[in-house]
Amino acid sequence: MYYKIENDIMEKTSMEEWENKQDGVALFTSADWEQAVNIRASYLLEQSHDNIRFCKLESYADFLFGTLHIPRKRERNENIGFAFYIMENKLIFIDDTGLVQKNIERISSGKLRKGYTVERFLYDFLISLIEEDVLYLAEIEKDITKMEESILAKEVDDFNYRMLRLKKELSRMYRYYSQLTDLGEGLFDNEMDFFGKDDVATFRIYADRVTRLQSETQVLREYAMQVQEVYQSEIGIRQNDVMKVLTMVTTIFLPLSLIAGWYGMNFTHMPELTWIYGYPMVIALSIVIVLACLWLFKKKM
Amino acid sequence: MYYKIENDIMEKTSMEEWENKQDGVALFTSADWEQAVNIRASYLLEQSHDNIRFCKLESYADFLFGTLHIPRKRERNENIGFAFYIMENKLIFIDDTGLVQKNIERISSGKLRKGYTVERFLYDFLISLIEEDVLYLAEIEKDITKMEESILAKEVDDFNYRMLRLKKELSRMYRYYSQLTDLGEGLFDNEMDFFGKDDVATFRIYADRVTRLQSETQVLREYAMQVQEVYQSEIGIRQNDVMKVLTMVTTIFLPLSLIAGWYGMNFTHMPELTWIYGYPMVIALSIVIVLACLWLFKKKM
Amino acid sequence: MYYKIENDIMEKTSMEEWENKQDGVALFTSADWEQAVNIRASYLLEQSHDNIRFCKLESYADFLFGTLHIPRKRERNENIGFAFYIMENKLIFIDDTGLVQKNIERISSGKLRKGYTVERFLYDFLISLIEEDVLYLAEIEKDITKMEESILAKEVDDFNYRMLRLKKELSRMYRYYSQLTDLGEGLFDNEMDFFGKDDVATFRIYADRVTRLQSETQVLREYAMQVQEVYQSEIGIRQNDVMKVLTMVTTIFLPLSLIAGWYGMNFTHMPELTWIYGYPMVIALSIVIVLACLWLFKKKM
Amino acid sequence: MYYKIENDIMEKTSMEEWENKQDGVALFTSADWEQAVNIRASYLLEQSHDNIRFCKLESYADFLFGTLHIPRKRERNENIGFAFYIMENKLIFIDDTGLVQKNIERISSGKLRKGYTVERFLYDFLISLIEEDVLYLAEIEKDITKMEESILAKEVDDFNYRMLRLKKELSRMYRYYSQLTDLGEGLFDNEMDFFGKDDVATFRIYADRVTRLQSETQVLREYAMQVQEVYQSEIGIRQNDVMKVLTMVTTIFLPLSLIAGWYGMNFTHMPELTWIYGYPMVIALSIVIVLACLWLFKKKM
Amino acid sequence: MYYKIENDIMEKTSMEEWENKQDGVALFTSADWEQAVNIRASYLLEQSHDNIRFCKLESYADFLFGTLHIPRKRERNENIGFAFYIMENKLIFIDDTGLVQKNIERISSGKLRKGYTVERFLYDFLISLIEEDVLYLAEIEKDITKMEESILAKEVDDFNYRMLRLKKELSRMYRYYSQLTDLGEGLFDNEMDFFGKDDVATFRIYADRVTRLQSETQVLREYAMQVQEVYQSEIGIRQNDVMKVLTMVTTIFLPLSLIAGWYGMNFTHMPELTWIYGYPMVIALSIVIVLACLWLFKKKM
Ligand SMILES: [Mg+2]
Ligand SMILES: [Mg+2]
Ligand SMILES: [Mg+2]
Ligand SMILES: [Mg+2]
Ligand SMILES: [Mg+2]
Ligand SMILES: [Mg+2]
Ligand SMILES: [Mg+2]
Ligand SMILES: [Mg+2]
Ligand SMILES: [Mg+2]
Ligand SMILES: [Mg+2]
Ligand SMILES: [Mg+2]
Ligand SMILES: [Mg+2]
Ligand SMILES: [Mg+2]
Ligand SMILES: [Mg+2]
Ligand SMILES: [Mg+2]
Ligand SMILES: [Mg+2]
Ligand SMILES: [Mg+2]
Ligand SMILES: [Mg+2]
Ligand SMILES: [Mg+2]
Ligand SMILES: [Mg+2]
Ligand SMILES: [Mg+2]
Ligand SMILES: [Mg+2]
Ligand SMILES: [Mg+2]
Ligand SMILES: [Mg+2]
Ligand SMILES: [Mg+2]
Ligand SMILES: [Mg+2]
Ligand SMILES: [Mg+2]
Ligand SMILES: [Mg+2]
Ligand SMILES: [Mg+2]
Ligand SMILES: [Mg+2]
Ligand SMILES: [Mg+2]
Repeated sequence: MYYKIENDIMEKTSMEEWENKQDGVALFTSADWEQAVNIRASYLLEQSHDNIRFCKLESYADFLFGTLHIPRKRERNENIGFAFYIMENKLIFIDDTGLVQKNIERISSGKLRKGYTVERFLYDFLISLIEEDVLYLAEIEKDITKMEESILAKEVDDFNYRMLRLKKELSRMYRYYSQLTDLGEGLFDNEMDFFGKDDVATFRIYADRVTRLQSETQVLREYAMQVQEVYQSEIGIRQNDVMKVLTMVTTIFLPLSLIAGWYGMNFTHMPELTWIYGYPMVIALSIVIVLACLWLFKKKM
Repeated sequence: MYYKIENDIMEKTSMEEWENKQDGVALFTSADWEQAVNIRASYLLEQSHDNIRFCKLESYADFLFGTLHIPRKRERNENIGFAFYIMENKLIFIDDTGLVQKNIERISSGKLRKGYTVERFLYDFLISLIEEDVLYLAEIEKDITKMEESILAKEVDDFNYRMLRLKKELSRMYRYYSQLTDLGEGLFDNEMDFFGKDDVATFRIYADRVTRLQSETQVLREYAMQVQEVYQSEIGIRQNDVMKVLTMVTTIFLPLSLIAGWYGMNFTHMPELTWIYGYPMVIALSIVIVLACLWLFKKKM
Repeated sequence: MYYKIENDIMEKTSMEEWENKQDGVALFTSADWEQAVNIRASYLLEQSHDNIRFCKLESYADFLFGTLHIPRKRERNENIGFAFYIMENKLIFIDDTGLVQKNIERISSGKLRKGYTVERFLYDFLISLIEEDVLYLAEIEKDITKMEESILAKEVDDFNYRMLRLKKELSRMYRYYSQLTDLGEGLFDNEMDFFGKDDVATFRIYADRVTRLQSETQVLREYAMQVQEVYQSEIGIRQNDVMKVLTMVTTIFLPLSLIAGWYGMNFTHMPELTWIYGYPMVIALSIVIVLACLWLFKKKM
Repeated sequence: MYYKIENDIMEKTSMEEWENKQDGVALFTSADWEQAVNIRASYLLEQSHDNIRFCKLESYADFLFGTLHIPRKRERNENIGFAFYIMENKLIFIDDTGLVQKNIERISSGKLRKGYTVERFLYDFLISLIEEDVLYLAEIEKDITKMEESILAKEVDDFNYRMLRLKKELSRMYRYYSQLTDLGEGLFDNEMDFFGKDDVATFRIYADRVTRLQSETQVLREYAMQVQEVYQSEIGIRQNDVMKVLTMVTTIFLPLSLIAGWYGMNFTHMPELTWIYGYPMVIALSIVIVLACLWLFKKKM
Repeated sequence: MYYKIENDIMEKTSMEEWENKQDGVALFTSADWEQAVNIRASYLLEQSHDNIRFCKLESYADFLFGTLHIPRKRERNENIGFAFYIMENKLIFIDDTGLVQKNIERISSGKLRKGYTVERFLYDFLISLIEEDVLYLAEIEKDITKMEESILAKEVDDFNYRMLRLKKELSRMYRYYSQLTDLGEGLFDNEMDFFGKDDVATFRIYADRVTRLQSETQVLREYAMQVQEVYQSEIGIRQNDVMKVLTMVTTIFLPLSLIAGWYGMNFTHMPELTWIYGYPMVIALSIVIVLACLWLFKKKM
């Protein structure tokens, strides 16, 4: 599919007109692109874009070649990938996922700025890909806060696994923004060569915006780590509590058991056994021991 | 509201005069700003400042656009946000919180320096936003010291949660200063373009001052981490203490209980039971065991 | 062995032709190289390449000298090493492992690009060395995921040692990519001097590709660390579980044992013993204690 | 107080002569400085130096303004602060602590270099402030080594608190050197403007020297962290030892107690009780159990 | 001692010839240097090199002054230190340890390169100091691997202290290489000024080589840390094992003891005691309890 940008309007066009017009965007599926020998020959584009695993931007003599590898929100492990070429005033996407077309249509159907160019389109396109990310990060932050509250409420089933999921998602986003920052800075470095000279550092603003998302993600990673540490600490505290109960029970009952066992001995010469106050004395002694233990525990632990 | 800066005095003025005068500051609510088509058109300002979530500074062809997102001290999670434009010798704020007006009035009512300019006003304004931050950080430091002392005094209820609150507040401040440093450096980079040429790097001094606040915050974060580690270590030490009590009690009473149980056996042929010194010997043996255990514990643990 | 590059064909040639032709590649064993006094003299190459332990690139007056030290995949601790010289339009390998020849043949037997040069050959050669690394890293990632699942399934024999193996392998790869990045950047810095002037930063693309592999490795290292921490945390949780069982058993049986021991005492004056409801009351009391303990445990732990 | 530097001699002088001479140093208390309207007016110095909390250097149009905030050795939490101005060939200190005067006198009473200047004086002054720091760091290192040895000797009362004190002191010194490095680099950047042109990077040497102190401090921080980790690990090891004792005692005595309790049962039909070898058999069985337990423990733990 | 470098030969000479010749090296003890007023005056060298604690390089107007502080391998805590001056084509060592002379003799007795210069000598000298370091690092790596294997073999006496020794040695080497890197880069920065202009960055190669040693050391530090963490984790695992034994013993014997104690009670009305199957039933019950416990443990722990 070919689009021309003219008089602040972006609309479909034929291939011939696309080639003649100043500013244009083209969209291919990878199958179509294999066929498009013409275009590839006339612009000398021949990068292989087999397996897209990163966001990257490579700078060649007459064009920039890039790929985007976008994590799908809430569908951890799933990613969307497509490739693109940037030449002077021309932009070519090779995409099998439909994502690029959806975004082109959304942008071209809206009101375009005065003096719209391919450069501005590329900026709008890149921004459209990260527009909702602040909200997604806020969602993840809420999830971590929920984890934090669940420690307080002592409802911590599967805490480690749920937290590991969150941390992996944050790592995925962090890595994505890190790659986008490099890509944005690469675009900024090549801005003058491919989009004509002007004073405005369009892609610098994009790169800074992505960097802010990245440092937001970093903040969330640190927050997750802190909550994890609180959880870890709480496990230790709870163990201490369990140990205290065990120690208290043992400390109270072992002495009492000894006393009971003691007067269960069958020695023929044990005067206490026949003493009339023997049994009451043992009862009194037991009570004293229990009270002493409780008092010691209150004081020491 | 429009302010002009003239003859080292900063006072309200009309829109027309504001436009004609050399140095001026304007303040809009976001509703007023929507209406101010005039100004926006004549200066070609059209950034969307919907949701302010960061401190940032973006550099456009004819102006700088920035937002400030200021954490409210002691009210964790609450923030104040406003936007601003910087053009040649002009400064426009869009603020719904009243904070900007309060600060403008405080600055303009004080004695102004000789040769006061918009540049100096912006510096004074930015400094007024962080003026009391050193004191706030000192307050947080005192809180951490209190936490440290509470470990010593063994009054550590909710230590983890109180510490997590402090660490989150420090993260918030750290992130804020990190963004302000970037903003200050951005202003410094553009200082010559928007405020005329001179030798003084006004915003460099601002950026350095914010960097000092940031590194103070970092010091506090490290301090908090160290206190947390001491707490963690103390939990382990206390567990050891509890374990020692348990082990001592068990080691003293299990042998004694065995002896008592032993002579509680009902064998018909147990010579010790009828031996006249049987019971005294058992008492002596028990005392020896207790003393031996205590001596061993003193020596080994 | 001598290869010339001419008319987009790379083929074996004689030493004399190799010296005369514009672009050429030579391959020696270290024994042959010792003998090749001629070449070494005419190009003044005299680096000692005794023990290859790093990937490195050293820049001399008339040539670059480098070594590659490549970790063999899946054979941890084994490495392959060779050395190379880069002069104007000439490339000399000194290799005893056969790896270089294998790669030269694979590249020269494929279809070469138009305008093939030594520079492009070196790029293709370096890329051929890392081509399958993304797959290897994916394999390691799968191993870590398996470790993670094995924690969930509580089948964690030798977890620490298996994880240590993975972490050491990741360190090895990380270090390797770190050295390759430096090497790639060194080639990029010297690109113009040794391969003629052009606009294309061939080795910049190589360096960026290696950097991406390195940051993939870093992501895996962080993932491994997170899984390790989950394992560590699970050990603590399991210990808590064991402690709870111990405490519950102790808390239930010590009181019951005390009761049993108590009425095993041989005092002549113990009215409960002859009371007709004595034994049933003890049974009832025991049941009450057990139920109370169970109820307490349900509630508190 | 006014000092002039002339003919390699530094001595007190009057204010008038101070102003006329090429190189001079002046020293005020902050009260005097408030009065010194003359000097402040003629040099246009008007920085507020209310609360000194950092070492810093700010660069203004005609002067540098700095403050020093020096940690007092061995008196943790106490600091000494003063301010200074640097103008062309002039140096003004504002100090209420007496430290500056002490150092000026020590320097001026010693033999001065040939061609002594204000620049060299400032260098000597700054060096005099850190001269003994290497020794102080060596003292702290000895303290950490003492902590390490005390773990070995198992005398670890208050280890955590003593270590926390050391770590806080190291953080304080680290922060101080970090600020001094910035200050030294700031001086180096402005060296040519305020002290005349020459080839010697005086303050670069100062900055490097401070950086070495800082990296020494960093080494000590890492050492302290390692000792802390050994302590932490020893706590775990000791807990294991305590647990082993508990387990051994329990494992030996519980079976013996069972045997004793078993033959304390009052069943009318227990043939063992009346068997003539019953009691000897029980004794033998008990010895076997004890030996078996000891043998198992030796083997397994 | 004075050495001249001429016609690719380096040999002893007199002081006068040394001064006249182009390239020369001189070696003093610190006592001799105190006397060598002549040389110090004619070259204006007057650095104080009292206490050598770092490797450093300071750049003065007409010379470079440096010190080396070299850790002795295998003799932890012992270091060798000496100072040196670099002037145009001249090199002066002040050394009391004999190390410099040993290295000078080794280098001068070997075959020297064509066109040997002081620059090349300094490079050879510096390389001779680190020549065997790769082997030393390999030795340390072997030590760490031994520690790792000792964990597997459960022979971990003094693990923490032996590991702390290794980590301190690695810190010492790391710090040393870090200082050498700075020194090498300092030499590279001043290469042109003191050794004449040429294209070869001799000291860049030295600095890179030291950097590789440093990053090797870093790799070993990370390896040591990983082994430490495995040890730490194993302590936790072993504690779990001890706990399980304790819990199993307790869980088996406490119920049995209760049964035995129960039928040791002296109630007059306990029908089980006189029941003919009473004792066999208790035996059966005990066996059932033991089997149930063992089955539960097998399943759950
Ligand atoms: Mg990452
Ligand atoms: Mg990257
Ligand atoms: Mg960046
Ligand atoms: Mg980046
Ligand atoms: Mg990069
Ligand atoms: Mg941490
Ligand atoms: Mg942060
Ligand atoms: Mg930032
Ligand atoms: Mg910054
Ligand atoms: Mg930044
Ligand atoms: Mg900065
Ligand atoms: Mg590494
Ligand atoms: Mg490196
Ligand atoms: Mg790099
Ligand atoms: Mg690198
Ligand atoms: Mg680099
Ligand atoms: Mg780089
Ligand atoms: Mg770790
Ligand atoms: Mg850790
Ligand atoms: Mg610090
Ligand atoms: Mg700083
Ligand atoms: Mg610096
Ligand atoms: Mg610094
Ligand atoms: Mg430095
Ligand atoms: Mg730590
Ligand atoms: Mg740790
Ligand atoms: Mg270090
Ligand atoms: Mg350094
Ligand atoms: Mg370096
Ligand atoms: Mg360096
Ligand atoms: Mg470098």
